[in-house]
Amino acid sequence: MFNKRIKVKELLKQEPAGQEVTVMGWVRTFRNNQFIALNDGSTNANVQVVAELGKFDDALLKRITTSASLKVTGTVVPSVGKGQKLEVKAATIEILGDSDAEAYPLQPKKHSLEFLREKAHLRFRTNTFGSVFRIRHALAFAVHQFFNEKGFVYLHTPIITASDAEGAGEMFRVTTLPFENTPKNGDGSINFKEDFFGKPTNLTVSGQLEGELGATAFGEIYTFGPTFRAENSNTARHLAEFWMIEPEMAFYDLEDNANLAEEFIKYIIRYVLENNREDIEFLSQRMVDEEKQLPQDKRSEMGLIEKLEFVVNNDFQRLTYTEAIDILKESNYNKKKKFQYPVTGWGMDLQSEHERYLVEKHFKKPVILMNYPASIKAFYMRMNEDGKTVAAMDILAPGIGEIVGGSQREERLEVLQDKMKKMGIPEEELWWYLDTRRFGTVPHAGFGLGFERMIQFVTGMSNIRDVIAFPRTPKSAEF
Amino acid sequence: MFNKRIKVKELLKQEPAGQEVTVMGWVRTFRNNQFIALNDGSTNANVQVVAELGKFDDALLKRITTSASLKVTGTVVPSVGKGQKLEVKAATIEILGDSDAEAYPLQPKKHSLEFLREKAHLRFRTNTFGSVFRIRHALAFAVHQFFNEKGFVYLHTPIITASDAEGAGEMFRVTTLPFENTPKNGDGSINFKEDFFGKPTNLTVSGQLEGELGATAFGEIYTFGPTFRAENSNTARHLAEFWMIEPEMAFYDLEDNANLAEEFIKYIIRYVLENNREDIEFLSQRMVDEEKQLPQDKRSEMGLIEKLEFVVNNDFQRLTYTEAIDILKESNYNKKKKFQYPVTGWGMDLQSEHERYLVEKHFKKPVILMNYPASIKAFYMRMNEDGKTVAAMDILAPGIGEIVGGSQREERLEVLQDKMKKMGIPEEELWWYLDTRRFGTVPHAGFGLGFERMIQFVTGMSNIRDVIAFPRTPKSAEF
Repeated sequence: MFNKRIKVKELLKQEPAGQEVTVMGWVRTFRNNQFIALNDGSTNANVQVVAELGKFDDALLKRITTSASLKVTGTVVPSVGKGQKLEVKAATIEILGDSDAEAYPLQPKKHSLEFLREKAHLRFRTNTFGSVFRIRHALAFAVHQFFNEKGFVYLHTPIITASDAEGAGEMFRVTTLPFENTPKNGDGSINFKEDFFGKPTNLTVSGQLEGELGATAFGEIYTFGPTFRAENSNTARHLAEFWMIEPEMAFYDLEDNANLAEEFIKYIIRYVLENNREDIEFLSQRMVDEEKQLPQDKRSEMGLIEKLEFVVNNDFQRLTYTEAIDILKESNYNKKKKFQYPVTGWGMDLQSEHERYLVEKHFKKPVILMNYPASIKAFYMRMNEDGKTVAAMDILAPGIGEIVGGSQREERLEVLQDKMKKMGIPEEELWWYLDTRRFGTVPHAGFGLGFERMIQFVTGMSNIRDVIAFPRTPKSAEF
Repeated sequence: MFNKRIKVKELLKQEPAGQEVTVMGWVRTFRNNQFIALNDGSTNANVQVVAELGKFDDALLKRITTSASLKVTGTVVPSVGKGQKLEVKAATIEILGDSDAEAYPLQPKKHSLEFLREKAHLRFRTNTFGSVFRIRHALAFAVHQFFNEKGFVYLHTPIITASDAEGAGEMFRVTTLPFENTPKNGDGSINFKEDFFGKPTNLTVSGQLEGELGATAFGEIYTFGPTFRAENSNTARHLAEFWMIEPEMAFYDLEDNANLAEEFIKYIIRYVLENNREDIEFLSQRMVDEEKQLPQDKRSEMGLIEKLEFVVNNDFQRLTYTEAIDILKESNYNKKKKFQYPVTGWGMDLQSEHERYLVEKHFKKPVILMNYPASIKAFYMRMNEDGKTVAAMDILAPGIGEIVGGSQREERLEVLQDKMKKMGIPEEELWWYLDTRRFGTVPHAGFGLGFERMIQFVTGMSNIRDVIAFPRTPKSAEF
């Protein structure tokens, strides 16, 4: 048995009373041949290990370099130095693993986020990524806890799918067919009967349709899994592989849906504010430091913590698409032609700049936009009584834009069939989906929340590649 | 707002005192034109709704068919009928969705599991699958709670990967290249620079290698995500897409690893025994009923609940591979040549029948087998001092076989490089993995638990296709 240690996070909560401990971790810094800042990843805080002068061999001390791993036993005593209440007076120091300080890719200085992306296998060892990924963990746990408390069933919808009816974006093909001597039919087309699943298959873009199958049996379900887009978008907001949370609820209308989404977002942010205070404080300070380079008017109006507390403590602004168009049309921004895409009027799709105007300039809070024109939304969204809008909703967050997209689903079989026909979606492919409308259909609704965008919002990280462990983007699938 | 209802599970906990409630759900049965068994998926138990004779139109009553969806308001009163303490005396009954009883695929009779697999979009509405998937949810939540309580970080390792070094099995290709007019290099080979990621990519078979990157920064991490095998195994034990949990821990040796795995398995089983009692009881009875068709000697020695409680309350049997070979060699089974694969001696790979003999006949409890011959295990497992075994462990469960595979990892750079060279694994592909051994390497270990096999163990379901929502198997990717 080797794993007899106290984690630094736990140790730092103790009172120094001469107790004996074993700590293990990686060296962050080593000062004056005496003071070791040891980190074990449980927190950004290091524990100070004191190697009394003269007590240890020079040969050993020379090996205490940045990122070397140590096993230290010693006693916990009050620290005379500043910045920590306790330190470990080392009785024994064992080098578990050396680290050639000159070869080690992360030098004890500030590295750019771009540089660290190329060292994604080591960036977890920095304070920024330590905080980001502990918060990612906490948000994920809060997601499960929220839905579990409410009696939702966690449904694992399939990753490989033969259905491409959802139309949320371009898809990756999944195949075991060879590119050379691909099996062909008599007419020269590819013989997908020879493929692993006996037909063409793709990576899922959404678990929603299968989620509805679960909701119309269990009442309330949610998914939380990877989804994929084969879109050639090389931006700070897009990933080819990302994680999505998709709750789906029977007996919900659009208002119920919006209520749940708002409660959900507040819950998981509150969870992090309560459980990851140190990490949030670190990232809050980081954002201030980063923005010092920006001109005053480009800086965030609120600090990170202030922003999160504001979101948790205030109602989201709810309005219809139609009201939003009126606000945008009448805005000074539009009149002064500051929008890249002019506001042409009702029926137009909102661009990111319009959404951000509403959220950041006009309302200065998260916004729930509802009841969009049917023509710009997906086939499964419920037609409103006006015959031209659907019961859709998007939630827009300051600094991020769309963070949730959802709708009440069209539960009326004939209306849905009619819509599918108009949109050219073949019924044969979705017979199973239509069955839920044939046999005891119910009003139901759901939404999708992009997990990485949520993490960006909570951590203040501006590039989505910095909130997922190993980002997949066009021409890049490292590690 | 539509979602004003009490869930059946909550309602059945109340005392009947004439309180007014709204319930919504699907009709299971309708007896005597009066008694509606309504189910909402929160539990297998139905609430009895009483439509007093003469109070409702015949036209309405005719529409109360199997799987029709209803909204009922009424008062909660004591039930005079057997089997329930309360019932809802209906004041209003609204049909939310009709269901043509003749067309509805699930008739109110027992269907075979094979039949229900073809109706996987509706099978959640049966008692068996209701219980199985509520337990699946509970196990998933218990997994997250266990690791969260211990301070592990949940790491989302990538699904799409360019690395195929792990060698755990055949892989699915992920691509956006067309099969027709595939871009080629000058020498006629496929030009993968034109593919989405600029190189060939696959679906992951394991998150372990990336998990080690997390563990050597955060100390303790776990993954919980989908993994894939493109193996043409059409059995009751294999899926092409399944979910796996892979914890990875710095500062752990093999014994620490086995301790954690045993604690983990007991924790999640105990969680289900405590939180899903009704569902476990239902499945326990189901297993008894199913096994009535079998001859006495083919039936399970223990009932499902008895088995789970036994696992929770007893130490797993730990022994070395070498000891296991001796037991197998000396067994009457072997001497009477009852094994399909004879026990040839030390160095052989154990077959499923050997594992099951150890677990089910010899020890009659879960077994942790440790220290396998290096020659039959993966490159990253730590070489023991004997120079011929590695610090690997498999956990074998009664009725299932291997449920966990793990090892202490080889943390010594030179030993690892040597092993990779011998096994023909190119260092260039795993430079990032080797970096963890270059810069502060530490003793570390981890394991993988197949989530579906665990669910099989807990639910007693004998076919793995019945514990995942929409199974992916050779020639089948429905829904």
